[in-house]
Amino acid sequence: MTKHAPIPDVQGSPDGRRIAITRVGVRDVRVPLVVEAAADRWVHTVARAEMSVSLAHDRKGTHMSRFIDLLHRTRSVSLEGMQALHVRMLDLLSAEAGTIALEFPFFLEKAAPVSGVTSLLDYDVTWEIDGGHDDGKIQVEVTVPVTSLCPCSREISSYGAHNQRSHIVIDALYDPARAFTVEDLIMTAENAASCPLWATLKRADEKYVTERAYDNAKFVEDIVRDVALVLDGDDRIQRYRVFSENFESIHNHSACALIERDKR
Amino acid sequence: MTKHAPIPDVQGSPDGRRIAITRVGVRDVRVPLVVEAAADRWVHTVARAEMSVSLAHDRKGTHMSRFIDLLHRTRSVSLEGMQALHVRMLDLLSAEAGTIALEFPFFLEKAAPVSGVTSLLDYDVTWEIDGGHDDGKIQVEVTVPVTSLCPCSREISSYGAHNQRSHIVIDALYDPARAFTVEDLIMTAENAASCPLWATLKRADEKYVTERAYDNAKFVEDIVRDVALVLDGDDRIQRYRVFSENFESIHNHSACALIERDKR
Amino acid sequence: MTKHAPIPDVQGSPDGRRIAITRVGVRDVRVPLVVEAAADRWVHTVARAEMSVSLAHDRKGTHMSRFIDLLHRTRSVSLEGMQALHVRMLDLLSAEAGTIALEFPFFLEKAAPVSGVTSLLDYDVTWEIDGGHDDGKIQVEVTVPVTSLCPCSREISSYGAHNQRSHIVIDALYDPARAFTVEDLIMTAENAASCPLWATLKRADEKYVTERAYDNAKFVEDIVRDVALVLDGDDRIQRYRVFSENFESIHNHSACALIERDKR
Amino acid sequence: MTKHAPIPDVQGSPDGRRIAITRVGVRDVRVPLVVEAAADRWVHTVARAEMSVSLAHDRKGTHMSRFIDLLHRTRSVSLEGMQALHVRMLDLLSAEAGTIALEFPFFLEKAAPVSGVTSLLDYDVTWEIDGGHDDGKIQVEVTVPVTSLCPCSREISSYGAHNQRSHIVIDALYDPARAFTVEDLIMTAENAASCPLWATLKRADEKYVTERAYDNAKFVEDIVRDVALVLDGDDRIQRYRVFSENFESIHNHSACALIERDKR
Repeated sequence: MTKHAPIPDVQGSPDGRRIAITRVGVRDVRVPLVVEAAADRWVHTVARAEMSVSLAHDRKGTHMSRFIDLLHRTRSVSLEGMQALHVRMLDLLSAEAGTIALEFPFFLEKAAPVSGVTSLLDYDVTWEIDGGHDDGKIQVEVTVPVTSLCPCSREISSYGAHNQRSHIVIDALYDPARAFTVEDLIMTAENAASCPLWATLKRADEKYVTERAYDNAKFVEDIVRDVALVLDGDDRIQRYRVFSENFESIHNHSACALIERDKR
Repeated sequence: MTKHAPIPDVQGSPDGRRIAITRVGVRDVRVPLVVEAAADRWVHTVARAEMSVSLAHDRKGTHMSRFIDLLHRTRSVSLEGMQALHVRMLDLLSAEAGTIALEFPFFLEKAAPVSGVTSLLDYDVTWEIDGGHDDGKIQVEVTVPVTSLCPCSREISSYGAHNQRSHIVIDALYDPARAFTVEDLIMTAENAASCPLWATLKRADEKYVTERAYDNAKFVEDIVRDVALVLDGDDRIQRYRVFSENFESIHNHSACALIERDKR
Repeated sequence: MTKHAPIPDVQGSPDGRRIAITRVGVRDVRVPLVVEAAADRWVHTVARAEMSVSLAHDRKGTHMSRFIDLLHRTRSVSLEGMQALHVRMLDLLSAEAGTIALEFPFFLEKAAPVSGVTSLLDYDVTWEIDGGHDDGKIQVEVTVPVTSLCPCSREISSYGAHNQRSHIVIDALYDPARAFTVEDLIMTAENAASCPLWATLKRADEKYVTERAYDNAKFVEDIVRDVALVLDGDDRIQRYRVFSENFESIHNHSACALIERDKR
Repeated sequence: MTKHAPIPDVQGSPDGRRIAITRVGVRDVRVPLVVEAAADRWVHTVARAEMSVSLAHDRKGTHMSRFIDLLHRTRSVSLEGMQALHVRMLDLLSAEAGTIALEFPFFLEKAAPVSGVTSLLDYDVTWEIDGGHDDGKIQVEVTVPVTSLCPCSREISSYGAHNQRSHIVIDALYDPARAFTVEDLIMTAENAASCPLWATLKRADEKYVTERAYDNAKFVEDIVRDVALVLDGDDRIQRYRVFSENFESIHNHSACALIERDKR
């Protein structure tokens, strides 16, 4: 490959269709990332990123490689740091507004309820910031796997009750001036379930989780209501969406429920 | 299994948390379905359904099996028929509002551009109705696979140009009083791409699609703008969202663009 | 597009690397299909197809469009008909050996165990034929969703027992001279589970399935052994593979077990 | 939860069906992991693990929590270290044979071909060990995303040529006495493609990759043959499987080819 004459900048040319673009950029970019899980606790994970900006009606195209450059220079990020990353992206792309979403698995070390044996549990987390230079709003979404046990099945049966793995998904917009971590949302979800999950359970633990789920039967409706009760009372949360999906053990489909609320 | 005493109706009991539920129901229910592809053209497919309703703050639970009963009695459905299905669901569940979404593969027989050889192309379609008894709004979403060819790559290279499969996703809310089919959206998407796809191409067709894509280079920004131009001018469309994702042949990530517009 | 001179046949040219290709063809081709579910019962579904052939060391390429042509002309197929389809493919591609795999959802109408209410249950089925002109072997694979209930959890707990949705996957090579349907495999899997699934269950049915699963606790090891016992005794089956995966309700991972046996 | 009497060991009880189990264990366990990418270069990633063992005909069940315990104590692993991990698993489970598979994204820093700008590219890697105490065989599988450009399309068209992203999947069993890294397989795959991928390309790089792919047109058959030529000549490799899938830019399905060879 030899040197060559100046290469034309096709993306930088004007556009005459008079149609602005809501968002344009890159998605499904996979990168290793160090994230701040809690105050001063940084953990290694692998993220899928989406980065996009608004484009004025008179500009033909954005510069895709600048998103990737910025992302690859970002070796670590905290929830607070999303704000600065967002402003840097808008500046680099000369854009008025934009979105960054980072989706990654997140691990907590948990002690089993009776034996105290520790193991890691994995959660899917998304940090998303959206908006302009001065009004980027950060949302945190977490998918928390739990056990749900059916109150109807328990009530009508002489013994037993069907139960299953469920996903509780909480998506929250919070006051950026207040301390907030994804672990707060995880705890809220686990408390609202029939029982939390652990990766390692000894026999005494298995007895405990079986009986706890049975004592604590919940419809999918109960789960989202019990999460909503907590989020309603948490004045750091400005808007939320809680969704629960039960992968029914007695059907080949899911039961699901959703509550959305904007307190602003 | 012998006869037994009346079984309690746990779902029907009252709830004291004073939290209404936005939507509760079933999802990921797979059923065979006959859909009206165009006026009086009915085709067999397999759908994934989601059906949910709002639940008043003072009712503990909905009746999940009623959704499935209704869905299984629905052997065929047209876009217009979604309205009646929605009203039946709200009545059966005594609900004020609700959502039905049916997602299915849809096939069109297409003639190759030069040889005229016919083959089927598959598209993913979602029909969704959302709202109350009298104001259920129907949205149609279609994912159209196409070829995109990069204008920058063509301009700067002595020969060749990178191209790739792309998905154009159009989500449209239309005036229910007007005739409208998913094929209208498919045609709009295919015309906005560098080239449409066909399942079977003879050599003369392959020459044609290669040269047509090259003659018709489009950035991901161009694709969504060219779709938007058509939808802006179509007065049957009240609100739309057009998204394009290019599965870049020179990267391991996607380029994407989005335009959203509400004309109401 | 004007008429043009004869177009060269690049695929038909010779190859000098002296490396034969095990299989070459197309995959992920989606088509509507009518399949014979049981003797003379034909049902509509949507299949994903894979079709491939061996390629001699001295031939540069195969002719991809011929696979698609053949597939699109195939509007309906029975398990027995796979043999003729396979021979046609080998002839069309001038190939010594090849593979066709059709993967599709399959629906059975089932009556709920107490109320008798009927509903459809969906299963994933794959029909695969592999080999040469005279020795094409047909394999049937089915994924059967069921309930599994843990014997350990039941034994150690004062009440309740964790249970979950499981997939039992049976892959069987059978004697083509004998009558055989996928429903035989489905029944074997459902009988080996703690309880089968139904899409619609009334309250009396829900009591029944809850108690039946509890009465019928099975480890993942028990499930595959109980399937194996039946397949061992079925002299139509020449080789099988039974795999079960329990989507544990108390963990965020699966328990799984596999038995493979070749009786030939 | 109070102390309770000895809890029965249900899994440890005998089984009378006389059916041995090929493999039983856990799958879909997600864990953070540090892997040795190359000699003394350790990188952080997130893995999905599958661990299973054979079970004698007279034992009722395995001990699932021991797999998880072992996996969670394994914070880092090298390809050579898989052997010791495998032996530890067999000892812990008192098993004669077993399998461990770790699947994880792997990142290489690559310099763009003209500008030299560096960026990360992601590959999917699986390390699998299978067998008994003394004969555990390690296989490495890697999925390498590349560009393929169609020779037929180039030959028959006046300008342009369709190209697309492809996956080259190499699965190799190698001589454990010899030095071997996944990067060897990645380089073999990238050299056999029409062009490798990079995450960041400046305009001069985009010109280069466009022209290189055009100069280097390859059918899916050519790609697997060119990989096979290299693996045939590499005496560290004892058995291999190379599969390529082209996500055709002119169709909505894939073209694919496979070569399998066992040199032993």
